[in-house]
Amino acid sequence: MKGYEELFSYFEENLKQQAFDNKPSELYAPIQYTLGLGGKRIRPILTLMACELFGGEIEKALPQAIAIELFHNFTLIHDDIMDNAPLRRGEVTVYKKWNSNIAILSGDTLFALAYQYVQKADTNILPVTLNVFNKTAIEVCEGQQFDLNFETKNNLSVDQYIEMIKLKTAVLFAASLKIGALIGGASFNDAEKLYDFGLNLGLGFQLKDDFLDTYGDEHIFGKKTGSDILANKKTFLYLKALEIADKETRKRLINYFNSKEGGIEKFNEVKAIFTRLKVDRLALEKIEEYRKIGLSSLDKINLLPEKKEKLFAISSLMIERDK
Amino acid sequence: MKGYEELFSYFEENLKQQAFDNKPSELYAPIQYTLGLGGKRIRPILTLMACELFGGEIEKALPQAIAIELFHNFTLIHDDIMDNAPLRRGEVTVYKKWNSNIAILSGDTLFALAYQYVQKADTNILPVTLNVFNKTAIEVCEGQQFDLNFETKNNLSVDQYIEMIKLKTAVLFAASLKIGALIGGASFNDAEKLYDFGLNLGLGFQLKDDFLDTYGDEHIFGKKTGSDILANKKTFLYLKALEIADKETRKRLINYFNSKEGGIEKFNEVKAIFTRLKVDRLALEKIEEYRKIGLSSLDKINLLPEKKEKLFAISSLMIERDK
Repeated sequence: MKGYEELFSYFEENLKQQAFDNKPSELYAPIQYTLGLGGKRIRPILTLMACELFGGEIEKALPQAIAIELFHNFTLIHDDIMDNAPLRRGEVTVYKKWNSNIAILSGDTLFALAYQYVQKADTNILPVTLNVFNKTAIEVCEGQQFDLNFETKNNLSVDQYIEMIKLKTAVLFAASLKIGALIGGASFNDAEKLYDFGLNLGLGFQLKDDFLDTYGDEHIFGKKTGSDILANKKTFLYLKALEIADKETRKRLINYFNSKEGGIEKFNEVKAIFTRLKVDRLALEKIEEYRKIGLSSLDKINLLPEKKEKLFAISSLMIERDK
Repeated sequence: MKGYEELFSYFEENLKQQAFDNKPSELYAPIQYTLGLGGKRIRPILTLMACELFGGEIEKALPQAIAIELFHNFTLIHDDIMDNAPLRRGEVTVYKKWNSNIAILSGDTLFALAYQYVQKADTNILPVTLNVFNKTAIEVCEGQQFDLNFETKNNLSVDQYIEMIKLKTAVLFAASLKIGALIGGASFNDAEKLYDFGLNLGLGFQLKDDFLDTYGDEHIFGKKTGSDILANKKTFLYLKALEIADKETRKRLINYFNSKEGGIEKFNEVKAIFTRLKVDRLALEKIEEYRKIGLSSLDKINLLPEKKEKLFAISSLMIERDK
């Protein structure tokens, strides 16, 4: 069984061999640029790992792993337009480097290219793979729309937030594992258990992201903390704080999040409220809860524990990370 | 064999039965709106016709016909953002009625939904159907990017323009026919001939569109003429005119197309130049040329001529139309 590092090198090498250098170059240069920005490649590695878990050769799952990474990068290109994000992995975003039209269209193309890799699945596995892929793609779009809606919505509950990140983020981790498992020869039942493992890990992953954005160590995290608070993003931390705060604190928080003003001072004060209310600890507990549920699904798969070691390790990587 | 009218009713009725009413409504309302704007539905009808031509039941091709119409509408939603188009089929475009973010995301969702219908193909036909669909989707994106590039590009040739409209418009007509044919049980060879028929008809269709935008009768055409000239769109008419004009006329044309000024006066003067150079006639000849090439491909399919009558009729509808 191969671990994260080995699969990372394997995937990077193979992704680099995909040229994506057709014409017009205005369409393909942003695709090459985005894929070249790197990232942890967790999703495709989950696909490869899941395939190997059930005895499949990783080569067999490679096209689907690439498909998932292309799809993920398509969503990043489009999300960055919608979120007015100037930077992605520390580099200028596509719509800023080129323009919105090119970002829309190169994103669309990347989405279509993803399906060209889905298509490489063996005929017997193609219908179910395509089905998982389509369902997930639609859910990710729905999640992004919920996220956009939340910007102007008040009275959001923590549950609504969890439902949003489930669609926007967690289902893609889950689908990455399920598709890999199916290609590896897993039963539908086992593939579903792995889906559930991925879904819960994905929720934990996103909550950890929220946590690090406020509580991360900038030197380790590798990006500036505080962006969520300064953008008035209604994350788990904020919604949980609203839920448990007294009337006065609640009012102060809402006031902060209704204003576009305030830099480091606002960040520090909101963070202090969060800490006083212990929502940082509540977040870490919630993350641990999701990890436990996820691992219990992994447990239920009838394979020797040592076979599952690498997946166990990647779940720690996703959740215990400081960056 | 069913004709255009009958298949139109059949398709409309079945499209209406697809609810597309999931949550969040911000995502699905624009999809329902766009599909409800109507249109000639030529592409899906070609799919149904091609299926029936080879003895298949039209019901069998319905999911693919819907997939193609969804894909087409996805491209319209995104193109309208890129082209800053305020109106589509006489109604406000999605990005104007809602906003760009919603238009990007509901377009993405429509693209994913299209694949949910592609997926309904029988297992034996799914790989090849998916292959044609993917290839076409990528080509359409490439075509749109070439079209965007042409806005700022000089020294374009008529051939480059034809290559652009082939990708942006013609391949989707061609793929609609090919997919229908394959589902109907056509040999790969016959499906390819039908593809070629659709490709040439598609080229003729787009050139007719260009022609009508300048030479159409507004009352019949149903929309204002002159929009291409006023938007400095480098269509066949303009590029052909540049090719054959004397130096002086060429300079005048280029001046007109470098300026954003000028309303009806500019339109009338440019149109007068076109007419003097007979590019209107040259366009109609070119259209006829494409129709002939297309029909000769249809001819080569080894079926009784009366079987092909309805396809022959739709080719006239696409090319002889005044609206």
